[in-house]
Parts: sequence; C-alpha cells; structure tokens
Amino acid sequence: MADLWERFLASLAEAMALRRIKSVLEWDQEVNMPPKGARARAEHLAVVAGLEHRAWTSPALREMIESLQSRESELDPESAAILRETKWEVDRLSRLPEALVRALMEAASAGFSAWVDARRNADFSLFEPYLQRLVSLSREKADCLGWEESPYDALLEEYERGMTHRMIRELFENLAARQAELVAAIVDRQEAAGGYRRPPEGGPWSAGAQRQLTEAVLQDMGYDFQAGRQDLSPHPFTTTFDVGDVRITTRFDENDFLSGLSSSMHEAGHALYEQGMPDAWRRTPLADAPSLGMHESQSRFWENIIGRSRPFCLYLKQRAEGLFQGTFFMPDPETLYRALTCVEPSLIRVEADECTYNLHVVLRFEIEAALLEGTVSVKDVPELWNGRMRAYLGLTPPDDARGCLQDVHWSHGAFGYFPTYALGNLYAAQLCQALRRDLPDLWHRVEQGQFGDILAWLREKIHRCGRTKTAGELLTSVTGMPPSPEPFLHYLKEKFLS
Amino acid sequence: MADLWERFLASLAEAMALRRIKSVLEWDQEVNMPPKGARARAEHLAVVAGLEHRAWTSPALREMIESLQSRESELDPESAAILRETKWEVDRLSRLPEALVRALMEAASAGFSAWVDARRNADFSLFEPYLQRLVSLSREKADCLGWEESPYDALLEEYERGMTHRMIRELFENLAARQAELVAAIVDRQEAAGGYRRPPEGGPWSAGAQRQLTEAVLQDMGYDFQAGRQDLSPHPFTTTFDVGDVRITTRFDENDFLSGLSSSMHEAGHALYEQGMPDAWRRTPLADAPSLGMHESQSRFWENIIGRSRPFCLYLKQRAEGLFQGTFFMPDPETLYRALTCVEPSLIRVEADECTYNLHVVLRFEIEAALLEGTVSVKDVPELWNGRMRAYLGLTPPDDARGCLQDVHWSHGAFGYFPTYALGNLYAAQLCQALRRDLPDLWHRVEQGQFGDILAWLREKIHRCGRTKTAGELLTSVTGMPPSPEPFLHYLKEKFLS
Repeated sequence: MADLWERFLASLAEAMALRRIKSVLEWDQEVNMPPKGARARAEHLAVVAGLEHRAWTSPALREMIESLQSRESELDPESAAILRETKWEVDRLSRLPEALVRALMEAASAGFSAWVDARRNADFSLFEPYLQRLVSLSREKADCLGWEESPYDALLEEYERGMTHRMIRELFENLAARQAELVAAIVDRQEAAGGYRRPPEGGPWSAGAQRQLTEAVLQDMGYDFQAGRQDLSPHPFTTTFDVGDVRITTRFDENDFLSGLSSSMHEAGHALYEQGMPDAWRRTPLADAPSLGMHESQSRFWENIIGRSRPFCLYLKQRAEGLFQGTFFMPDPETLYRALTCVEPSLIRVEADECTYNLHVVLRFEIEAALLEGTVSVKDVPELWNGRMRAYLGLTPPDDARGCLQDVHWSHGAFGYFPTYALGNLYAAQLCQALRRDLPDLWHRVEQGQFGDILAWLREKIHRCGRTKTAGELLTSVTGMPPSPEPFLHYLKEKFLS
Repeated sequence: MADLWERFLASLAEAMALRRIKSVLEWDQEVNMPPKGARARAEHLAVVAGLEHRAWTSPALREMIESLQSRESELDPESAAILRETKWEVDRLSRLPEALVRALMEAASAGFSAWVDARRNADFSLFEPYLQRLVSLSREKADCLGWEESPYDALLEEYERGMTHRMIRELFENLAARQAELVAAIVDRQEAAGGYRRPPEGGPWSAGAQRQLTEAVLQDMGYDFQAGRQDLSPHPFTTTFDVGDVRITTRFDENDFLSGLSSSMHEAGHALYEQGMPDAWRRTPLADAPSLGMHESQSRFWENIIGRSRPFCLYLKQRAEGLFQGTFFMPDPETLYRALTCVEPSLIRVEADECTYNLHVVLRFEIEAALLEGTVSVKDVPELWNGRMRAYLGLTPPDDARGCLQDVHWSHGAFGYFPTYALGNLYAAQLCQALRRDLPDLWHRVEQGQFGDILAWLREKIHRCGRTKTAGELLTSVTGMPPSPEPFLHYLKEKFLS
C-alpha cells in the first residue's frame, strides 16, 4: 500500500508539474515575451498542454486510482481527499474526446482573432459565426461531461463545483432587482453629498512611486515577497508555480494611483490564498481553491471590503507619509474614500464600482445560460444585452464594442466563468460578517495597518482547507449559513446608505 | 516519404520544444524567481529534463531515423543535414545509461554545494572527494560515449565537436609560452606610456543610464529587441527560446560602466548569432552553432575586437553625447581606450583582460585533461594550479578560493568546456582577418557606429550556416586556413605593441 501510494503521488506530481510549467510559460508570455517570441511560445504551450493531458489521463494513473479506491478505508482523511480530487480531475479530462478538445482549442483561437476584429470594428456580425461554433462545441462538451437539469451545469462545474444553474439563478434572483434599486438610491445620496469624484486630483503619480506604495501595502497585508513578485502586465493576474512562488501583476495609471493600488490588492488577495495552501499538499490538486468564486472572495475582500473602507484610507495616508515624507501627493482620507467608493452605472464591467459590478455579471450569466440551453439564439445576443443593460443599469450601449463585445471570455469558449465574479462578491461579504464576529475590532486594526490577525483568520478558515470541501460547504461551515445574497446587500446598505 | 519526413519533423519539434522550455525555466530561475520558488523549480526542471531525454531517445524517433537513412539519397542536402544532426544527438544521448545520467546529476548537485562551501572557506579538501567522484563518473561517461586516443575527446565532443585533445594541445602548444612573453612586453609598454587605469574616473554612473546606453549600443549592433530583451542577473548569460526570442542578461557596476557595457556586448554577440539562424531550421538541431568555441568567437569579436578598439571609443563618446546631452559622464576616447585595454596579470579568469585570458584557460585545460586521463590525481590539483599560475602569469594565489576553487564548471561535472573559451578568442581573431579583407574600411565603419555590414558579413559567413559544418570546417571555408593561434597572436601584437 505504501509503495502504491508513493507511486501514485509521483505520477500526480508529474501531472501537477506540467500544469505549473504551463503557468510559467503563460506568465512569461504576458509579462516578458518579445513580440517575435509568440509563435514559438504557442508551440511550446501546445506541447506542454498535450503532455499534461496525457499525464492526467494515463492508464497507469487510472489503474492506481482504482486500486487505491478499492482500499480507501486504509487511507487517512487527507489522503482520501487527495485521491478524490485527483479522480475528479482524471474523470473530467477523460470524458472529453481528444478531437473535441482540439476542435475547441481551434475554435477558441479563431474565435479570439475574430472577436478582436469585431470589437475593433464594433460589428457583432464579424464574431457571430465564431460564437455560434463555440456555443455548439461547448454544448457538445457539456453532453460529453454529462448533466441532468441544464447543460450549463456541466460547464459551471469546471469553475464552481457544487453549484448548478438552478442554485445560481436562485441566488441571483431578486439580487439584480434589489441591487439596481440600491444603486439608484446610492447615486442620489452621493449626489446630495456633493458628488464623488474619481480619480482624485493631485496627480500625476510616477509609476516608480506607485510601485513602492503598492509593495508596502502588499507587505503589510502579508504577501510574502520571498515567495512571489509583482510585475507589470496589460491585464493584471495572479499565477501559481508553487506555494513558494505565487506571482501577481498590476498596471499603473499615472493619473490615478488608486487604480493600480486596487488592482494590486485584488491580485494580492488571490495570492495570499495560494501562498497559504498547506505545504504538504503542494504537488496535489488539494492545494487549490474549491472554486473560482471562493478564490474571487479573497481578492474582493481585500480590494473592496478592506481597500475601499474609511479606516483603510486613514492607514493609507499614514503609510504614504511614512514612506515618502511628502514627495508623493496623498489626498486627505475623506477625498480618498470618496474616490474609492464613487458609484456610477457604467457600460464596462472591468471599470465598474463595487455596487454596480454584480449587475454586469448577472446579465452575462442569464445570456450565456440561455445560449447553452438553446432558448435564445446567438444572433439575438446584442439585443438581449442592450435590453438588460437598460433594465439593470439604465444605460444603452452606443455600440456592441461597449456592449456584448466587451469581454474576452466567450471568445475563449469560457462559458460558466462569469457568475464566479459575482459569487466572489457575495462570499466575501458573507465571510466578512463571520470575521467581524471573531474580530470585533476589525476596523481599528485596518486603520492601524495591522492586517496580521485578519490574514490569520482567512488562513485558518479558508486557505488551509484547500479543496477539501466545496465552496458551499466551506462557506456554510465558516459562516453558519449557505451562500446567500443577504450579507452582500446588507454590506452595501450599511456602507453606502447608513 | 513526405509523410515519414513530416512525422520525423514533428517528433523532432517536440524534443526541441522541451529543450527550449527547459531554457525558459532556467532563465526565469536566474532572472526572476523568488527564493522560495527554488524547490519547485528544481522539481519542474527534473520533469522536463526527463521528458526531453525520453523524447530524444524514443524508439519511434530512432526507427524514423533508420528508415530515413536507408533512403538518404532522396533527401536534399539541408534535410540530410537535419537528419545527420538529429542522429548525432540521439546517438549521444542513447549511449548514456539512465543510471549514470542520474548519478552524474546527483554528483553535480552535491558537488556544487560542496564547492560553494569549499570556496567560501578557501579549503580545497572540502571539495576534493566530490571532485574525485565527478572525475570518475565523467571518466565512466567518456567510456560509455567511446573514445580512441583520449577519454577527454569523448567529453570535448559535447562542446567542440570535431576537435580532439591532441588538436587542442597542438593549437595551445607554444600559445601559452608566446602569449606569456607578449603579456610581459605589453605590461612594460603600458607602464612606459604612463599606466593604464581601470575603471576610469568620473563615476558613479546610475544603473538606469547604463541600461539606456547598453540598449542603444546593442540596437546599433543589430540586436533585435522585438526578438529578445536584456535583463539583470548575477552571472550574465544568453539563452534561446526560439530564433524569435533570444534573451541576454547583464549586470551594472555603478563605479565602472564599462564592465556592464562589455558584458552586454559579449552576450549580444552570442545573441546575434542565435537571432541569425535560418528560420526554417528553428525547430531542428541545425539551428545551433557548430561548437561553443564558434559561439564564443562571436561574443569575443564584439566584446574585444570591436568593443575594445579606438574607433569604438570614438563612436561611444559620440553616442553617449547624443543620448544624454551631458547628463552621463563619458571620459574622452583615449581614457576610454586605456581603461578598456589595460593589461595586468591577475588571479581571476572572469576578470582577466583579453591578453591574459587564454593563459587562464590553457592551465585549466591541461589540468582537466590530465585528471580525465588519470595522469594526475585530484589531491594534486592545488599544487599543479599554483605552479602553472606562476609559470604563465607570474602570480601565486594566496589561497585556493582565488586559485583552483574559483570556477564553478568542475563542480557541475563540466569537463571539456574550458578550452572553448580560448578557442573563441582564436577563432574571432582569425575571422576578423578575413572580415578585414572583405571590408577594408572596417574601422571607419566602427567609428561611425555603422555595424550593419559587419553583422551582414557574420550572418552570411557564420550565422546562416548553423550546424551544417563543424567549427573547423566552417573556419577553414571562411578564412582559407584551419584553426590557428597565429591570427590571435598577430592581433595582440598589432593592437598592443605597434
């Protein structure tokens, strides 16, 4: 048994290593690669992806899993969890025929180019046939993976295991309507208070100084620079090569230092999660979040709940003064707070404030689920999109580039991803309720820049659990209730309307 | 046949891709990796190295090679060369039993740690047993690879194919004695001329400005920043991920801007070679230099022959003035020239000037060959080393850290590597004689910063040939004579004593 277990772990380590190596190649592609390196990089990524797929679906690994399953009673709970999670990966990957995987990769590659072109020309018709192909192939993928109530469930499972289309629909039900109402009230309130303004005045702020400031804040949050680094990339992201090497990227806008700071805190939220995985699991699928929604809860927690609070503004002012002795213009805390919490319905999701953000997500979820279920057709997407934008945000996109063509996800064939963004917001608020019960002086600590016990709490309650539970199970065990929109709506009311 | 050839190229492309991926992981390790990433990186490198070895030695690839060989008459010369070079790689890798490869890797890993420790303590006895083990395993490796006159030949083949111990011995014969004589005369001459001084006065020079200056010079040399980039690392190196992605590293010393500049030009010399490989060969072993000596000829050519010439100093002064408008202190051309050509026997190879450098190499070659042939024993290395330092450079190392423990190579089990450094110097001088015949106004062009035709000549004569010939064949075809020490000795006399 011990020998079988060791051989199993060795095979697993190789499959995991190939996954991590792919991440190194992708990180370098976004951060460092010169333009003429793109052709070879695509080839190298295809080689590693092929080897990784072979490693996860090898008959030898499958046989070991079967042997171990037949003797599961001999395994301790942690080993049983490792076995279960490995089996989940293997089963899922094995259900997809190689021809379909290749067809999806090709459709995504063609789809991405077509999307770039369509967005540039603000012409949905250029993307339509590609999106049609991606929807049919994704539907085929869902059928291969298997589903009961909705084909959307099969795709969602990749990102938010344990959740179904029905569960999310119920969770989002009323959320859109109630949140839209809140937004209207908040906008009125902010106008009455003399208007909120973003970016704050007083720039420009040099990129070098912004880097110094974000690094100081990240350090205070507990991000370990011995086990990671911060670089620049056009689209900020977090990537994990190992629990000892979790890297983030950011971007600096010289006219708005808060934009880069929020982005860095968001990615650091993800990175703290990854740096906090148990070392013993690092070469197994257990060293991962149970879902993207749970991952996003960590980034949103730091970016929005902590990073857009009044106490944080007091800390930030202090911190910058200690760091720069006046050479970096830092607005007063109230101006900072107003800039960080300015609410305004807008057309573009990635620029949306924390109050309107979910509305962008709900409309995407509704449309993509309907596409997969076949209840709407691809050609109707622009009309559908614009109609919901009016309903939820009171805005009409002037063209499809600022409407249904704004996001890259569908062009990659990623259906089922969007809801995790909103779930992250809901989970974060729900977790913070529990955190405030355990740490009643939370806001005092934030004001002092004492983030240690906050991180310790997240480590103990969330990070160290890895993938031993689903997101729903984990949230229920930590907060005492299943995923709910109420804590988030309560958070918005308390923060913006009290 | 066409189908077989395509399948062969596809297998080859995968083996090459794995080699390149390993380079990406290694580059990141030197340039970016945070300390806690080291453990996983070693694991990932081991996985890729294993997969690469399997790819090169797979029975399928071997069978394709045999089938193609039996129909070689149907191949065009280029395809025949690709087949030959692939067979060379496959044969060499297949002759090494996996157990020996692993034993060598482990001995190198242990040897490296012991060497770091021994060097820190200046105590050869701490390294001696590890070096003993590395020598015996390398001797075993040589026996597996096969040799006729000297086991050294089998190891040398990896770095300088076509050369033998005897050939290098003959090439180096008299070189040491004649070069040592020249050095003495040059030192006297420089003293009589009022002394040469390095670094020049006028610093410090900020790292940012040095980066700007080196990038301008590299651009003028023809290094394509769309197909590469320059980063910082403790030990400068060049690495190739593809003909479209060839990266160099450098280091800046704020008290001596010439040190970083020379280093950048050296690496750019290597990189221009790699960027100049025919695109059609990029996924085959043909897109490589025939030997490390030939590779080093390109780096030495740019670093020393061009970069330490009077016309280059005139260009550099001009270039810096155009770039910085006085904000970067640039000494006058004669002071620059004296700093760049200051000759002084010294203990450390990597700091040696171009006149004394080969002497450091010759003594290492003599010692390592004797170790492999078993004519001296490991325990006698320090004494042997110090004796030759006295004979060639007139210096006695005060301790082994500044003597036989200074280089990392032997601790990695790399025997047969050192001579390529000196060969590079000899090849560069021999090539430059031919270049001057074809471009009589060479020095005028250098003074004007017009490096285009120089690079074009190197591209045509050397870079585009890849590995179609051995270094000796290539040099003979370009210069009309086999590798010889005479052009190099002539170059030194003309430059330093006329």
